[in-house]
Amino acid sequence: VVIVGAGFGGLQCAKALAGAAVDITLVDQRNHHTFQPLLYQVATAGLGADDIAHSVRGIFQHQPNVTFRLGTVVGVDVESSHVLVDPGPALPYDHLVLAAGAATSTFGVPGVAEHAFELKSVAEALALRNQVLTCFERADVEPAFVADGGLTFVVVGGGPTGVETCGALSELVHRVLCADFHALDMSAVRIVLVEATDHVLGGFHPRLRAYGLERLADMGVEVQLAAAVAGIEPTAVVLASRERIAAHTTVWVAGVRAVPMADALPFPKGPGGRITVGPDLTVPGHPSIHVIGDLADARRTDGTPLAGVAPVAMQAGRFVAQAIATGEPRVFRYRNKGTMATIGRNAAVTELPLGLRFRGFPAWVLWLFVHIMYLVGFRNRANVLVNWGWNYLTYDRAARLIVRPERDGSE
Amino acid sequence: VVIVGAGFGGLQCAKALAGAAVDITLVDQRNHHTFQPLLYQVATAGLGADDIAHSVRGIFQHQPNVTFRLGTVVGVDVESSHVLVDPGPALPYDHLVLAAGAATSTFGVPGVAEHAFELKSVAEALALRNQVLTCFERADVEPAFVADGGLTFVVVGGGPTGVETCGALSELVHRVLCADFHALDMSAVRIVLVEATDHVLGGFHPRLRAYGLERLADMGVEVQLAAAVAGIEPTAVVLASRERIAAHTTVWVAGVRAVPMADALPFPKGPGGRITVGPDLTVPGHPSIHVIGDLADARRTDGTPLAGVAPVAMQAGRFVAQAIATGEPRVFRYRNKGTMATIGRNAAVTELPLGLRFRGFPAWVLWLFVHIMYLVGFRNRANVLVNWGWNYLTYDRAARLIVRPERDGSE
Repeated sequence: VVIVGAGFGGLQCAKALAGAAVDITLVDQRNHHTFQPLLYQVATAGLGADDIAHSVRGIFQHQPNVTFRLGTVVGVDVESSHVLVDPGPALPYDHLVLAAGAATSTFGVPGVAEHAFELKSVAEALALRNQVLTCFERADVEPAFVADGGLTFVVVGGGPTGVETCGALSELVHRVLCADFHALDMSAVRIVLVEATDHVLGGFHPRLRAYGLERLADMGVEVQLAAAVAGIEPTAVVLASRERIAAHTTVWVAGVRAVPMADALPFPKGPGGRITVGPDLTVPGHPSIHVIGDLADARRTDGTPLAGVAPVAMQAGRFVAQAIATGEPRVFRYRNKGTMATIGRNAAVTELPLGLRFRGFPAWVLWLFVHIMYLVGFRNRANVLVNWGWNYLTYDRAARLIVRPERDGSE
Repeated sequence: VVIVGAGFGGLQCAKALAGAAVDITLVDQRNHHTFQPLLYQVATAGLGADDIAHSVRGIFQHQPNVTFRLGTVVGVDVESSHVLVDPGPALPYDHLVLAAGAATSTFGVPGVAEHAFELKSVAEALALRNQVLTCFERADVEPAFVADGGLTFVVVGGGPTGVETCGALSELVHRVLCADFHALDMSAVRIVLVEATDHVLGGFHPRLRAYGLERLADMGVEVQLAAAVAGIEPTAVVLASRERIAAHTTVWVAGVRAVPMADALPFPKGPGGRITVGPDLTVPGHPSIHVIGDLADARRTDGTPLAGVAPVAMQAGRFVAQAIATGEPRVFRYRNKGTMATIGRNAAVTELPLGLRFRGFPAWVLWLFVHIMYLVGFRNRANVLVNWGWNYLTYDRAARLIVRPERDGSE
């Protein structure tokens, strides 16, 4: 069994095959699993990079049927059943599980790839942290920089990641940096959330959306709804309405598509380049190739697509593991256990099945609990608990370091 | 008062002036204080970068007479009493405290700057961590890489940093990576400590030196004494004896000199480019300019130089603060409280005044205690305690992540 991708889906699949009489090779282009839902906290100095990532080899130290391979998948030879990996030899497979996840979708907007920050990896989160802190340092000595939008932070995309990033940025600025920079006027800081539709937190109940908007307004975040972005420049965001927002920092969390690897694979694709799969999560005509998580265009029986969230990928990973172990194809059914997003201190929204909805403090406590539970590794959990406890009690964000590479350390 | 450098000396000086009626500007080229004695643990994946560094602005949030300035000092105009900082305007001073510390000294050995890893900053420690882990990943798929010295790690310099780095590397390899890489033969790993003199741990009592050598041998570290390095190449270290050690990774911790900034200053210099100071730690002829820590060539009354270690810098910082606050010049006397170095699990050496010497477990516990005490910030202490407890109980090194910049995030 070859599993491509050590995200939520790939990990669950490999773990669920622990007792099975199979040899598993897990391939990823990074040596660590990234807990993507908390990347925004690394970007806003609330957590360290090491708190939310975990060595893949470490996860499987005690599962002898898993071998890890660091490398990039450059193709799949379906004729000979081999996965082509760079560097190193190709990997033969009997069963292939593609779980390589999603990349940022620019929707063809010019300037996104060149000038916007993204939040899909630890390195990107650290780059954004460096950028935010450097803007404040520069503003402290260069008043013209502030007038030029140096302290304006635009977040494009009003989904959970965009809302969480805006909330965390606001807390960083108004609870921590205001004390760090005595001489700076924090009223010059603008945090702008730009969303193309007429609401934030799509996927949540309208009452929770309204609560989110209200909390964002309380935190000083300017929300621009029904605002499409026409282009991103180094020091401005241009909207379709021709409005220009002067900003040196733009975060693009507006959408995802399949990782570029998918484009090279000879399988039919659905929206966003996702690989079309049948109800058993295999590629039609290739019963030994499974696709799960954000890489798959999987549908419910009524034809609606499954959301690109961690619980879907995890359940699909376990489902595919069972299908491989038993050899019996079945139909994947996603059991929705709910969705959640946090806006700030004591403020979150949670939507559970059967119409159960929470907001405010109870939703926030539930959010904390679920995120700690799903972190990989006891040490990561303990560190995150220490940091969150510290942040909550002191209003501090201790990881506000600017660390730039002084040499790249490559061979 | 302008203080250049937020290391041990600069921080102590600024803190000791907390109650004084002075305005302090603290300048550093990084926005954080780095706890340099533990950088080797970041390089060997025992600690995260955020655990041993602390935002300078955060340290002085509650000390209103301190202003921080992120920038590089490019010169001092002694005529007009201004410090030239890039970027931003020059800083006028009544009292100047130069505490910018040390840089790596290559002693003119060719290839050090180009091919060796150093351990003076968080970024350098992370680069070394990436390198070590990447070598093992590469060895796992490329047997020829091992034969070419891909798993040979040469550490040049047998002082405390070199010994600690070798010990930590050995534990990383033989306690953690051996379980990560089932298919790799760990007997192919060589850790070589190269030292130009005939002993390691210079500055310690011969009995403690012998203990250090013995422990290193137990841990599988090859120690080459009386071995001078003639040059460093990308894949080899060349000794003066013409011996070539094939190695893709060389760590250079053989010596320090004053930071390059010192070269531009119009003051007399001693060995290693350090600025010569009188018994009151001022530059002769410039009573308002103090130099402390690794940047100073300070001498005891018998003419012997003071060691370039944290306690000297900290005591000098407090001494200069008092001299500035009281206006009374006095003679600086260093009170030696001891020196310590750790070699590995349960193994350290400690030399206290009055000939008190410890080794093994008691020295190691003392080492742990002192390092936790001197870490800045409760959160850093709590995180380091959690990580050390975890590492000790599980033999794990949880921070073994390869994180390379995907974009540099600069403006």
